[in-house]
Amino acid sequence: MTVIARIGLDCALPINTADRVQLGHGSGGRMSASLINDVFMRELDNPALAQMGDGAVLSAGSAELVVSTDSFVVSPLEFPGGDIGSLAVHGTLNDVAMMGATPVCLTAAFVLEEGLSMELLERIVASMATAARTAHVPIVAGDTKVVERGKADGLYVATTGVGVVDPRCRPGPRGAQTGDAVIVSGAIGRHGMAIMSAREGLAFDTTITSDSACLVPLVERLKTSGARLHVMRDPTRGGVASALNEIAQASNVGIELDELSLPVPGNVRAACEVLGLDPMYVANEGVLLVMVPRSDADTALAALRSHPLGRDATVIGRVLRDPSGIVAIRTGLGGTRIVDLLPGSQLPRIC
Amino acid sequence: MTVIARIGLDCALPINTADRVQLGHGSGGRMSASLINDVFMRELDNPALAQMGDGAVLSAGSAELVVSTDSFVVSPLEFPGGDIGSLAVHGTLNDVAMMGATPVCLTAAFVLEEGLSMELLERIVASMATAARTAHVPIVAGDTKVVERGKADGLYVATTGVGVVDPRCRPGPRGAQTGDAVIVSGAIGRHGMAIMSAREGLAFDTTITSDSACLVPLVERLKTSGARLHVMRDPTRGGVASALNEIAQASNVGIELDELSLPVPGNVRAACEVLGLDPMYVANEGVLLVMVPRSDADTALAALRSHPLGRDATVIGRVLRDPSGIVAIRTGLGGTRIVDLLPGSQLPRIC
Repeated sequence: MTVIARIGLDCALPINTADRVQLGHGSGGRMSASLINDVFMRELDNPALAQMGDGAVLSAGSAELVVSTDSFVVSPLEFPGGDIGSLAVHGTLNDVAMMGATPVCLTAAFVLEEGLSMELLERIVASMATAARTAHVPIVAGDTKVVERGKADGLYVATTGVGVVDPRCRPGPRGAQTGDAVIVSGAIGRHGMAIMSAREGLAFDTTITSDSACLVPLVERLKTSGARLHVMRDPTRGGVASALNEIAQASNVGIELDELSLPVPGNVRAACEVLGLDPMYVANEGVLLVMVPRSDADTALAALRSHPLGRDATVIGRVLRDPSGIVAIRTGLGGTRIVDLLPGSQLPRIC
Repeated sequence: MTVIARIGLDCALPINTADRVQLGHGSGGRMSASLINDVFMRELDNPALAQMGDGAVLSAGSAELVVSTDSFVVSPLEFPGGDIGSLAVHGTLNDVAMMGATPVCLTAAFVLEEGLSMELLERIVASMATAARTAHVPIVAGDTKVVERGKADGLYVATTGVGVVDPRCRPGPRGAQTGDAVIVSGAIGRHGMAIMSAREGLAFDTTITSDSACLVPLVERLKTSGARLHVMRDPTRGGVASALNEIAQASNVGIELDELSLPVPGNVRAACEVLGLDPMYVANEGVLLVMVPRSDADTALAALRSHPLGRDATVIGRVLRDPSGIVAIRTGLGGTRIVDLLPGSQLPRIC
């Protein structure tokens, strides 16, 4: 198995001084981080937002809650393995679950484009409803706005999830510790390549389907397994590489991966080679990364593998003391390469 | 003072069978109601969503919470008296406050258009931050996506608010009772006409400024006044007429307004006449309607008038047993006209 670990390039553009929003600002890479820090955090800074997790923890009356929000602009609206409706439910539920919380409700705010087929809208709303019902989480509030033809690519939707914090389980991006095992719950790269294949009209021997799925059941099994969950993260936009870079930086640790252990399906690898992409940076929507003490790795793996979504769970690397903030990959040939944040976008509009 | 009470027309278009989304579906009128009932409620129906209030009440652990969400697509992004950033904060805080709850946090999910001026984005985020700080409610989680040039009119933003329910105060659209006084907290029609004036480049003797404001302080004063708050509602999209129609239908009561008591500023009335609009249907973003027993009306008025935002609070009508579900207006000439829901849109993209 060959995995091309793309070495991050410093961006030649003067990102911080760019005076216009660029597509790369939505990539989940270095430009996104710059936009968030320079524009949003500077103005909106507060302790909850500064946690920089998948959501925020806050107190409301006597409860401790997690709140997370995401806007979805995926194109096309329907793709093999999912659509924007189920994706918006899965994506936000997963962000709440990654904080160790139990989701209790969702909201959905739509921007609809004039001329959108009512039949397509109905399919998407039905898919959203099915995804929410399957997860036993109701969509309790919503809103619709309509914009003129040409202004919204069919529809955009923003979902927000509220969950109740589990006091025994508070994983966060700062929780990685030296000696932790890095586990991934399943095959990587499927969502992004399903979108790209649909968009580019690529035909392979087998259709690549998105992995879009609700990770709440996997998190429940991990929580009841007794494994100490230091970090959980769903490697969505920016892929496994970006998620691990953020964790390495937030936790001040190094992360070392084994190239040969990365579960990249054959059709994903083939599609990536055709398009010149690296599966490490491709978005996933039904996979989680979890870091646990090495002695708990077997327990965590068993818990994940007991559910169909986690059947292919595997250890892909380990947390080291040094070099702090760096993700490196040991290649099949015995060398080591650094896996940096990409500056901009490999794949726009994938979620 | 002349107020043109536009009599609702049954829509000639077969709304229920229309196979494409139309701008009128975003109007807050009859077409919006049809879209929500026929597409969204049919699929997503659950007890919280079926409350059909400005938000949903739900239990999370030991707390009872209110959650509300809104997407904002106002054009232009900046207008006299506000911008999409402060509007998105005010709009969602107000929806939480209208449920009698105390807001504890907000989230914001952006869709940015490639090419958006970074300076404009910074101004909007700063305005959002100021509005949130002024209301003492942090923006705890956010998300940004970027879409291609031409796809989002600069930016759209969806805000979601979470609040803690006040068990002593549970106003809702079903709470209106025969004999209630209908009170409005200030001048109506300003927001919609500020947007339209800015968009159409209309010049009047005085600039119409949006009333966009956070209504939380007014609600706090109402709550501590001791007046029994049966219904609170901010008459945004669709204006006072649409909000009162929804309340009349939800509460199975009639509502009778006095034309001469409606507080319509002179410049709003003039702009409405030029554009052929009715101020009763024009959006407000810093005004609330409250219904209290007639014997509590003076208490509620005094509470509202003790705050600058409620200085012009006044009684505009009353709740009657019959005709159920109907809003009527007694004209200055002594007649009575029915004020129906409009089928579609007077003003697209005003929030």
